[in-house]
Amino acid sequence: MADLKVVALAGGVGGAKLADGLAQVLQHDQLTIIVNTADDFTHFGLRISPDLDTVCYTLAGVANPETGWGRLNETWHVFESLQEMGMPDWFQLGDSDLATHLVRSMRLHEGHTLSQITQDFCGMWGIDIKVLPMSDDVIQTWVYTNEGDLEFQEYFVHQGCRPIIKGFKFEGAEKSKPAPGVLEAIDQSNAIIICPSNPWVSIDPILSIPNIKAALENHLVFAVSPIIGSRTIKGPAAKMFMEMGVPPSAKAVAQHYGRLIHCLIIDNSDNALVKEINELSIRTFVTDILMRDRSDRGRLAREIIEYINAYVRG
Amino acid sequence: MADLKVVALAGGVGGAKLADGLAQVLQHDQLTIIVNTADDFTHFGLRISPDLDTVCYTLAGVANPETGWGRLNETWHVFESLQEMGMPDWFQLGDSDLATHLVRSMRLHEGHTLSQITQDFCGMWGIDIKVLPMSDDVIQTWVYTNEGDLEFQEYFVHQGCRPIIKGFKFEGAEKSKPAPGVLEAIDQSNAIIICPSNPWVSIDPILSIPNIKAALENHLVFAVSPIIGSRTIKGPAAKMFMEMGVPPSAKAVAQHYGRLIHCLIIDNSDNALVKEINELSIRTFVTDILMRDRSDRGRLAREIIEYINAYVRG
Repeated sequence: MADLKVVALAGGVGGAKLADGLAQVLQHDQLTIIVNTADDFTHFGLRISPDLDTVCYTLAGVANPETGWGRLNETWHVFESLQEMGMPDWFQLGDSDLATHLVRSMRLHEGHTLSQITQDFCGMWGIDIKVLPMSDDVIQTWVYTNEGDLEFQEYFVHQGCRPIIKGFKFEGAEKSKPAPGVLEAIDQSNAIIICPSNPWVSIDPILSIPNIKAALENHLVFAVSPIIGSRTIKGPAAKMFMEMGVPPSAKAVAQHYGRLIHCLIIDNSDNALVKEINELSIRTFVTDILMRDRSDRGRLAREIIEYINAYVRG
Repeated sequence: MADLKVVALAGGVGGAKLADGLAQVLQHDQLTIIVNTADDFTHFGLRISPDLDTVCYTLAGVANPETGWGRLNETWHVFESLQEMGMPDWFQLGDSDLATHLVRSMRLHEGHTLSQITQDFCGMWGIDIKVLPMSDDVIQTWVYTNEGDLEFQEYFVHQGCRPIIKGFKFEGAEKSKPAPGVLEAIDQSNAIIICPSNPWVSIDPILSIPNIKAALENHLVFAVSPIIGSRTIKGPAAKMFMEMGVPPSAKAVAQHYGRLIHCLIIDNSDNALVKEINELSIRTFVTDILMRDRSDRGRLAREIIEYINAYVRG
C-alpha cells in the first residue's frame, strides 16, 4: 500500500483519533488531513480554531485525552484571572492553548493565512503529515434552533447543545475557496476517508465549499460511521439526527452522505444494517470501529487502509 | 485641605508611586490621575497600556515592586509556551497581566473606549480615585534615534534604551481629544501635580494634546523632579536629557517645563540649584523626594499637599 494516497476529512475528536491512526499506518507523503474550520470563532479578540487544534494537538501527542479538547498537563492561570475579572468562562482556555491562539491571532493580523500558520504549527509540533484547513476564507456555522439562530460555539459549548436543532447554515461557504493544496491533495488521492466526525457540523461544512464537493464526486469516498447503535461516542450527532427527524443509526449516516460515498464503515454491532445500507448502493465494511486508545486508532486505520487497498485494486 | 482638588499627571513607575502616595493622603473625590497612553502598543494582537497598568496595579496594591512593571506573585505559563513556540520574548507577559490585556483588547474590539474600560478595571480592583487615560484616541510615541525611527516599546524594552536619541514625535496627538472627564477634572482642580515621571516620554505626550496643554495654562502647576543630582531613580530620563544636549539635573527639568510650572519640587541634595531655578521664575520646594517604600510615598505626598495648600491659600 506504499503508493496509496489518502485524503481524510476531519472535524473534532473522532476525526482527530482516526487521523492519528492513519498517521501511524501511512507514510507522511501518503496522507493529507482536511479539517473543518466552520466552528472557528473569535473569543477575547483571539481567533480560535477548535477542530484544527484538536487534530494538531492529537497528532502531536499533546492533546488532553480526558476532555477531547485542549492540552495535556495544562495550567489555567490566565483563565482563573479572567474569571476573577468576572469574564465569561463558558469557553475554557488553558495557558498553553492560549499561546496557540495568541500566535495564530497575531499572525492572521499580520496577514498570514490560516493554512500558512497551520503548516508552521505542524512543523513546530513535529507533525510530518499534511494538515490543511478546509479554507483560508471565513466560513461560519450557524445553528438554527428553537431558541433562535446561534453561532456554533454558542450552541455547542455555551448552551451545551441543549436547544432543539431546526437546521444549519455555513455562512460564507458559497463564495469560499478551498485552502491551497486541498484540491491538489484530493486530485492526487486514490481514496477519500470521511472520519467518524459529526456529519452535520464537522463534515457538511467541508462539503459546503463548492469546489471541494465537486472534486470529491470523482473519487472513491469511504466514510466511517460516527454512530454505533443509535448513539455517538462523543458529541451531539445522534441528537442532531433525531431533531432533524431522522432516527440516528449507521443507516441514517449512509442516507445523509448518499451518493457521495461508496462505502460506509460500520461497527460489528450494527451488522444487521448491512443489507439496508447496501440497498442504498453503498457498500459496507463491518469491524470494531470504536477507538478506545491509541493502539485502537492504529488498528482501525490499518483495517480501513487494507480494505481500501483491496477495493482500489479491484 | 478637604476642599483641595488635585489633578496628577503620571507616566510609569515614578508616577504610579506618587499617585499611590496622593491616594493615601487625599479623599477619593479630591484626586484625579491622568495617565500617559502614548506608549500603548499592540503585541500578539493585544492592546497593551503599560503606564495605565502600572498606575492601576500600584493603586490596587498588586504591582510587582521588584520590576516596576507587571504584577505581584505572577506566573509565566503562557509566556513560556510562547517562548517554546519561538515567539519574540522581549516584552514579558505574565499570566494575570495577560488577562488584563485580553479583557482590554476584547472590550476595545467590542467598541468600548479605553476610559470606560479603565473605569471598570478600577472598580474591579477596588481603586476609588479617578484614573483617566489622557485620551481615548490612539497617540503613539516615536523615538528618533541614530538607529532610525523606533516605536516607543521597541526603543524602550526591545532595544533597552540603547540607541542615541535625536527627538520625539507623538503621532496622532495634534488631532486628538482628551478623554472624557480630563478637562472637567483640570477645570475643577486647585492644583496640578506633574509626577516624577519622564518629562520626554511620559509627561510631554500628555501635554501634546492641544486642549490639555491649553487647560493647564490657567492652573497652578507643581512638578516633582524625576532627577536627583544628575540621575534618575529609574528609566532613561537622564540619558535622554544628555542626548538632547542638556546636562541632566533638576534645573534641566525646570527649563524643560518652563512657564508651564509654577513650582518644582526638588531633592534636599539639590538644594544648591534653588537660586538658579528661582531665576527661571519657578519656585522651589526642597525635601526628600526619594520614595523608597509605600510609607515614603505617603510622606512625600503629604508634604506636597501641605505645601500646595499653603501656596493656594497664599
